[in-house]
Amino acid sequence: MDKFQQYVNANQDRFIAELQDFCRQPSVAAQNWGMSEMADKVLARLQKLGARAQIIPVADGAPVVYAEIGEGKRTLVIYDHYDVQPPEPLELWESGPWDAAIRDGKLFARGVADNKGNLMCRIQAVEAYRATLGALPLKIKFVVEGEEEIGSIHLPQFVKENRALLEGADGCLWEAGYKDVNERPVISCGVKGIAYVELHARGANRDLHSANAAIVVNPAWRLTWALATLKDADDNILVDDFMKHVRAPTDAEMDALETIPYDEDKVKADLGIKSFIRNLTGIELLKKYLYEPTCTICGLYSGYIGEGSKTVLPNHAFAKIDFRLVPDLSPDLVVDLLKKHLARRGFADIEVVLTETGEEVARSPLDSAVVRAAIEAAKRVYPQAPVVYPTMAGSGPMYPLCQQLGIPAVGAGVGWHDSRSHAPNESVRLADYFEGIEFIRELIDQFAR
Amino acid sequence: MDKFQQYVNANQDRFIAELQDFCRQPSVAAQNWGMSEMADKVLARLQKLGARAQIIPVADGAPVVYAEIGEGKRTLVIYDHYDVQPPEPLELWESGPWDAAIRDGKLFARGVADNKGNLMCRIQAVEAYRATLGALPLKIKFVVEGEEEIGSIHLPQFVKENRALLEGADGCLWEAGYKDVNERPVISCGVKGIAYVELHARGANRDLHSANAAIVVNPAWRLTWALATLKDADDNILVDDFMKHVRAPTDAEMDALETIPYDEDKVKADLGIKSFIRNLTGIELLKKYLYEPTCTICGLYSGYIGEGSKTVLPNHAFAKIDFRLVPDLSPDLVVDLLKKHLARRGFADIEVVLTETGEEVARSPLDSAVVRAAIEAAKRVYPQAPVVYPTMAGSGPMYPLCQQLGIPAVGAGVGWHDSRSHAPNESVRLADYFEGIEFIRELIDQFAR
Repeated sequence: MDKFQQYVNANQDRFIAELQDFCRQPSVAAQNWGMSEMADKVLARLQKLGARAQIIPVADGAPVVYAEIGEGKRTLVIYDHYDVQPPEPLELWESGPWDAAIRDGKLFARGVADNKGNLMCRIQAVEAYRATLGALPLKIKFVVEGEEEIGSIHLPQFVKENRALLEGADGCLWEAGYKDVNERPVISCGVKGIAYVELHARGANRDLHSANAAIVVNPAWRLTWALATLKDADDNILVDDFMKHVRAPTDAEMDALETIPYDEDKVKADLGIKSFIRNLTGIELLKKYLYEPTCTICGLYSGYIGEGSKTVLPNHAFAKIDFRLVPDLSPDLVVDLLKKHLARRGFADIEVVLTETGEEVARSPLDSAVVRAAIEAAKRVYPQAPVVYPTMAGSGPMYPLCQQLGIPAVGAGVGWHDSRSHAPNESVRLADYFEGIEFIRELIDQFAR
Repeated sequence: MDKFQQYVNANQDRFIAELQDFCRQPSVAAQNWGMSEMADKVLARLQKLGARAQIIPVADGAPVVYAEIGEGKRTLVIYDHYDVQPPEPLELWESGPWDAAIRDGKLFARGVADNKGNLMCRIQAVEAYRATLGALPLKIKFVVEGEEEIGSIHLPQFVKENRALLEGADGCLWEAGYKDVNERPVISCGVKGIAYVELHARGANRDLHSANAAIVVNPAWRLTWALATLKDADDNILVDDFMKHVRAPTDAEMDALETIPYDEDKVKADLGIKSFIRNLTGIELLKKYLYEPTCTICGLYSGYIGEGSKTVLPNHAFAKIDFRLVPDLSPDLVVDLLKKHLARRGFADIEVVLTETGEEVARSPLDSAVVRAAIEAAKRVYPQAPVVYPTMAGSGPMYPLCQQLGIPAVGAGVGWHDSRSHAPNESVRLADYFEGIEFIRELIDQFAR
């Protein structure tokens, strides 16, 4: 055990307590809950680290916490976010989402995997590095935003206003990563885009007794019929012209899938499903997972949803829908196609609202220095060899923060295959967390070379 | 002004206070909230009236309050219910649902129109009759149940166990009635049947990050696709074989529609709609309204429905659906057809739950004595001539309580066209309420002849 590891071991209890402190502060961007308190906590921790840290306001948005530390030939941007998803449904949590309770070697909290665990792990790794190995061999720039879970709506504006802070960086460590069902660390080199919309259907000027349903329009039915035109039961997206904009993966992109050992049986057992959509397996499954767009009902509401029965004809129905995008789809294009599609089918009465500005697709070259450094660091730290995903199935602001500035980005982090991001009982395993600290130390050394 | 009217005038404040007292007691059968307290209140008021009143328990259900008063050649059953619909959505009420606030000559409360206003009005009318006109000229049997809003699930059992109390009655005054948009009192002679079901679709064993939606089943989509097979956008019910069981109205039934002056423009303006379903008008509109079945989404839920966005792949979705039935559809038949329909289309995974036992269709002869008495009483009391509906568009336990025992039933009551039964800001107009007391006095005299 070297000095770095000894330091981490000696400070283990404090490190966990600091992570709990982050997790006990609610910071739900969608509900504007606890945002400035959380930004202050991040600022204070980065200042304690010895970084030149500041809160950079963004007009009408949650501020960005920005910090610089170290000097060297190369510059590494570390991107994280201090906001989290809403904790609902609360009744499904075994311990409170803000309790940060520890059970069976895991810390349970909303946001611990996505993304407070990674943020704190990276800060503590830098602390341990400087305390035991000396000055950092590169410059690190922390960019910690507060709106990732609502589509990073103001991050493009932040980049526009602070371009000089980011330009010329050599690589970016993206916010997250996890171990797959076979404990292999997953490294990812891109994100899908996203367009999150609400569809609203409206009926009479008030809820009515359902006896009126024989002759008065029911918005819950209108919404159902409209939704059913968007995707068929074989999971084909039917929005007019949508699939025309999907660029087929290149041979190189398809080859990259061959290197991913995806344990389908374990994933299915873990999720409690008998098969994947369309009974897909192998390369076709990975292709759909990583290279195809989605159209997902994330929320659906109309009328009475309490216990028992209420014979009501509702006057409002809505759906929340998330489209995950691949090249060459963009958020604005999708909203435009969706509106035209609905109007063409007689659903012009259904209001389409883009609830966020959306996010563009981004992918980094697999042979860029930061990707190679992450792979090498993972090989040195983890018992299992890393798996490299050309893109995540998820989204994030990689385009405005990195790709448009020519900065390659790579995702790696302390999650595990059952971290339950965005769902009740989100967790990280503490063993993964401390391995993650070791990974950051190796990444620093590898990338500084 | 005769003695009866003088008595009612003199007691007006107390009568309103008694109605408020009923309305301030929550009694939501679907939520099992305040049921025994409300039954006790009804019992006490009937005892105060001088009736031989008792609470008759029903195994596993809310008890029936039963009372007898008066003697005569004829026996009139008065059917009401002391339960009400759930008050949600609470935020749309201008005054609390249990406040029984009076504004602009109206009393606002959950259940005041459906059905506590009618119940109290009838009790007070009998009180005034006996106080001013002498002994009742007929026997009245009050049957006040507590499960009407959840499908009268135990009333058939009550009738089975207490058949002797009801058999031989000459007619029944049904729970409700209202004035239409042109202030004409509506008298109705039947009910549609009802089957209220829940459809549940399930996915993975937990909610997931929506990035997984490319390959993991989404129950919100499964439910949407299944629902879309039940009814088309032109409002045709597509459940296999469903419409085959709908008996065409007889010539006499169609003729009865000709006598209904339905003011379509006023109804549309009142509801804030531009047209009725299929742009129907005239006899075709009334035919669909009264003689055709419905399939209505009353509630719809999946995933995240709070503010802002949550990118979640839900693991559960459900719909609450109410089918209103006409001859020869029955609840059990509908559930059976629905299950077969879904299974045939690959939706056997969607669970179908009949949330109540359902209710059968019932219609009374238009020339029965109790119908004729109600029409005559209405003509004497109301400025406008009554409108006779061969059936309501709504439902109720008229089959088990009346039709199977050969007792004709007629509906009339103190609602108005904007009473908002089952919806926020339910109300009765106090002027209608006191006219209703006069109507009951006339009905007693007409039916006792």
